Amino acid sequence: MSKFEKTEKNRVRTAARRGHYDKKTIYEIIDEALICHVGIVEDGVPFVIPSIHARNEDKILLHGSKASRLLKHIAAGHQVCVTITLLDGLVLARSIFNHSINYRSVVLFGTGRMIEDEQEKMQALETLSEFITPGRWDVTRKPNAKEMNITTIVELSIDSASAKIRTGPPVDVKADYELPVWAGTLPIQQQILPPVADPKLADGIPTPDYLADY
Amino acid sequence: MSKFEKTEKNRVRTAARRGHYDKKTIYEIIDEALICHVGIVEDGVPFVIPSIHARNEDKILLHGSKASRLLKHIAAGHQVCVTITLLDGLVLARSIFNHSINYRSVVLFGTGRMIEDEQEKMQALETLSEFITPGRWDVTRKPNAKEMNITTIVELSIDSASAKIRTGPPVDVKADYELPVWAGTLPIQQQILPPVADPKLADGIPTPDYLADY
Repeated sequence: MSKFEKTEKNRVRTAARRGHYDKKTIYEIIDEALICHVGIVEDGVPFVIPSIHARNEDKILLHGSKASRLLKHIAAGHQVCVTITLLDGLVLARSIFNHSINYRSVVLFGTGRMIEDEQEKMQALETLSEFITPGRWDVTRKPNAKEMNITTIVELSIDSASAKIRTGPPVDVKADYELPVWAGTLPIQQQILPPVADPKLADGIPTPDYLADY
Repeated sequence: MSKFEKTEKNRVRTAARRGHYDKKTIYEIIDEALICHVGIVEDGVPFVIPSIHARNEDKILLHGSKASRLLKHIAAGHQVCVTITLLDGLVLARSIFNHSINYRSVVLFGTGRMIEDEQEKMQALETLSEFITPGRWDVTRKPNAKEMNITTIVELSIDSASAKIRTGPPVDVKADYELPVWAGTLPIQQQILPPVADPKLADGIPTPDYLADY
């Protein structure tokens, strides 16, 4: 299956022309993002918690402390919504009304399970680590038994998802193009700055190449 | 009141030392962010929708299409969770376990109402516009009656909120400082790139100063 079925749950309603349901588009957004926002319902109250994530085929991995209320809730099999947003720019039109935002976002729904098998858990941690900081897994100290024990990893099966994308210049109503107002976009980019060494870094350890290329 | 009361709802549990409850800290994060993630519950299902926002004293303004399911839900007075995350960097430790993220996040809860009074609604639109793109309100065409009519603005009263902040270098366990592993941070910044004029921009309209300084 290369597309998610369009249902009442994932259908993009407002500006429906911006909706996308194919996995390629959706997964590229998930893979580019460093953080997601995870929504759950507890006692009827919505909670939205930021998290890092990784994608493993049709699954999303989330991890954190064994004490995490969010992860316990997900592990119990409740419905979860994960939203990812890449902000690409501010769109400045000639009218206030037609101001907009360029963005790529994904809203996905799924249910999770805790990864308990030790080998599968270690593999999931490697996937998370390499998703966020490629190259680190092989050079750092791996989790020991105590650390594994206080870490929870959950795997969410994506049941439904859609992306919403806006790109390009402002679109004004015809008459407004006559107005002497500057219009265009302010592109926005998430920039990774040069690595900053830990003040406690021992002498003689160079900045690794995989960071320079990040 | 300069602080939000710490309750079961807003209490930062995991890494509680990173929790903040004072309005100054919380509002600075809200004010710096360009987008938020809004969580609601419909038929027991969590939905998390990205949105732009503005803060007006102890209230959050959200706006969008009159057809927006999210805004209708908020206007009906249901509980809402708004989460804002500023990602400041990746924290690379000597062990996988102590890898982390530098961030400033806010999770707030409230209930909303629709702004229906025309004058109050126009004022709220100005607040939103100036929050996101200072300087635009005075130079662009203001919303006309038809545009006002198809725009919904809701005002959320913040009932409860907390911030969670991590800064600084990695913190490793003592023995790991002996490892020959590079450690430090990769700072991340949201960067506004130079303005890109609309291809349809009329000749002779210069890029305004308020954009150069954004």
